[in-house]
Amino acid sequence: MSTPADTAPAGAVRQASLREINLALLLGRIAVAPRPPSRAELAAATGLTRATVSAVVDDLIGGGLVTEVEPTPRGGAGRPARGLLLAGHGPAGLGLEINVDYLAVCVLDLTGAVRHRAVHRADLRPVSPAETLALAAGLARQARADAHGQGLTLAGAALAVPGLVDADGVVRLAPNLGWREVDVPALLAAHPPLTEAVPGLPTLVVENEANLAALGELHTGDPGTTTFLYVSGEVGIGAGIVLDGTLYRGVRGFSGEIGHLPVHPEGHPCRCGGRGCLETYAGQEAILTAAGLTGADVAGDAVRLARLAAGGDPATLAALAGAGTALGVAVAGVVNLLDLDTVVLGGTYAPLARWLVPPVTAEVSRRVLAAAWSPVTVRPAVLGGDAAAVGAAGSVVRRIIARPTAWLTRAG
Amino acid sequence: MSTPADTAPAGAVRQASLREINLALLLGRIAVAPRPPSRAELAAATGLTRATVSAVVDDLIGGGLVTEVEPTPRGGAGRPARGLLLAGHGPAGLGLEINVDYLAVCVLDLTGAVRHRAVHRADLRPVSPAETLALAAGLARQARADAHGQGLTLAGAALAVPGLVDADGVVRLAPNLGWREVDVPALLAAHPPLTEAVPGLPTLVVENEANLAALGELHTGDPGTTTFLYVSGEVGIGAGIVLDGTLYRGVRGFSGEIGHLPVHPEGHPCRCGGRGCLETYAGQEAILTAAGLTGADVAGDAVRLARLAAGGDPATLAALAGAGTALGVAVAGVVNLLDLDTVVLGGTYAPLARWLVPPVTAEVSRRVLAAAWSPVTVRPAVLGGDAAAVGAAGSVVRRIIARPTAWLTRAG
Repeated sequence: MSTPADTAPAGAVRQASLREINLALLLGRIAVAPRPPSRAELAAATGLTRATVSAVVDDLIGGGLVTEVEPTPRGGAGRPARGLLLAGHGPAGLGLEINVDYLAVCVLDLTGAVRHRAVHRADLRPVSPAETLALAAGLARQARADAHGQGLTLAGAALAVPGLVDADGVVRLAPNLGWREVDVPALLAAHPPLTEAVPGLPTLVVENEANLAALGELHTGDPGTTTFLYVSGEVGIGAGIVLDGTLYRGVRGFSGEIGHLPVHPEGHPCRCGGRGCLETYAGQEAILTAAGLTGADVAGDAVRLARLAAGGDPATLAALAGAGTALGVAVAGVVNLLDLDTVVLGGTYAPLARWLVPPVTAEVSRRVLAAAWSPVTVRPAVLGGDAAAVGAAGSVVRRIIARPTAWLTRAG
Repeated sequence: MSTPADTAPAGAVRQASLREINLALLLGRIAVAPRPPSRAELAAATGLTRATVSAVVDDLIGGGLVTEVEPTPRGGAGRPARGLLLAGHGPAGLGLEINVDYLAVCVLDLTGAVRHRAVHRADLRPVSPAETLALAAGLARQARADAHGQGLTLAGAALAVPGLVDADGVVRLAPNLGWREVDVPALLAAHPPLTEAVPGLPTLVVENEANLAALGELHTGDPGTTTFLYVSGEVGIGAGIVLDGTLYRGVRGFSGEIGHLPVHPEGHPCRCGGRGCLETYAGQEAILTAAGLTGADVAGDAVRLARLAAGGDPATLAALAGAGTALGVAVAGVVNLLDLDTVVLGGTYAPLARWLVPPVTAEVSRRVLAAAWSPVTVRPAVLGGDAAAVGAAGSVVRRIIARPTAWLTRAG
């Protein structure tokens, strides 16, 4: 009954990775501390000796991961110690998003500050995957040059796509983009590298856009909200499920397809091949059609809808009410199933939240069995339309923080 | 930034609980070992000394938690060591289930063997909660006497109820039973204790029936299936969501209400106050009504339906096809959301699985976006109609195994 893990000689492993563990431990503490901790506070909190803490912190400072600040003067005896915080001048993360009607790019430094951000609006459905990825690579090139000009080094990229992405970065299916079996890493290999190569860190991770947007909300929004459903309303509708601060990915990473929850089982045909999917009632095109805005330019649709709704346009108000009700039916189903207390409306739903939250809340109150004992908050996302790109860049930054040795021991 | 947990003097705690930790560690190893391990194997697997292992194992044997078996003779040098396994003669768990049309009781010993089992069929909707709990207490009394006659001691009870149960054992709402705010522990206090009191172990845990049935499936069914959706079809329909071997309970413990997923948003009114809930299309009464079996005695309905379906009765076959399609619509939604690869049909669905699995599978294939890359198995549950009672008793047994000190240090 003994397993290899039980009996392997662990001593050698421990020895080699001790520095790595301490670097990650202290950097992680510094990253989550509510105010810049001193070396002494880090020693007290971790049980490491002050000498070890100082040596490790010196490595982190030398490698551009941590910086030291003078404390605010205060009363009382003794000189206050200098505080440590994440550096905004070293490695950074590149986030990209490909969606049906836009491309977005974003650079976050280690502190989480946005250092570069751009959105390129275009209907990408008639564009081939290779051409779309070439456009994304162009945006990445500009971002990298801008970051470089600011003294930052891109240490990895994440790309958000509205579809099913497997562990190798192959987009199995993105119905609204018309993608099927698109090998993103292979197609991007035709372009210059998007970022520096840092051994031990992935150069590119491809991930579902709602999942990355949900991570963005987790790390940027209310720190007390660590369990929630993030609904990303675009042309398609995706969801990211965050449970206890962890993204729930499902057995094969294909979770969150809320857009294909049937709200009228034999209703409108859907691009997925099913019928009556939520997307066909509450996706951006369904709302535009219901509001009588067919044939419209895809760019800025949510803003246009919000303007019309604010002006009292009856067709737009009716379209949003209908979409909100359909969304509420699906969300009520999810809450009945998962007993979540927070639902975040993101993507194009965020600027429309004023009109969507009431019908969603009404359906939840009406349909959720536990509503009387387990109230549900429905609210707009903190991040805007490029939430997935911000979340993508943030996921890169978090990987750097989790494995500082990779960055510190890179060549050059 | 240091927290009390960081700085508390841990030495005293460690000292006091070392024996407790070793008892639980070794008992846990013995419980999950594929074949009875020897003392030497336990020492090798845990890193404890042979002397410590022997002392702890002696305590476990002396307390009736573990027993020793002679090994099967084998070739080779040396006398084979005696193996250790869970004892079937010491503490046991009591499981109870209250459902709309039956009460079930079950006793499991530490090895997981069923030592007592009874089902009492009756329509409990006209019966008050207090009277229903009195019936359950009566069944428990018989079970306790029978267990006692077999030399077993009941060391705790769990009660399954088809509804929303809070952490204090109050049934907030069980719509099909007509229960609302029923304080089960308070009502049961009017009866003699169901089991021995063992300080450190709860005497009674009240839990949702689908959750307990899902745990029963987890611990009794295929050991390779640790992530699945368990759907419990009774008069109501509940679900237990098991992720990586852990029951997912939700923010307040109210997860799994699949019966109230809307399958036709403005369809049949439901007892919950909503409309078009799955229960109104695929619950036991909906199936009976669709099969033309109104006014029937509630007892044995699934068996009757199975007999009629096996005989080719067109109305019954059509009713099961319709229910299976509605169930498939809801299950497809859950799989789209959670990316699960196994769906287990339990309760009255188990004997009807032959007719329900095809339409459920058809809807899943048609509606699940990832179906081509992430195949979903839909199968009947391993346990029968009293799965929740078995799962309830099993949950008690697992608590005893997790905290052997409670049992070993009890008075008397």
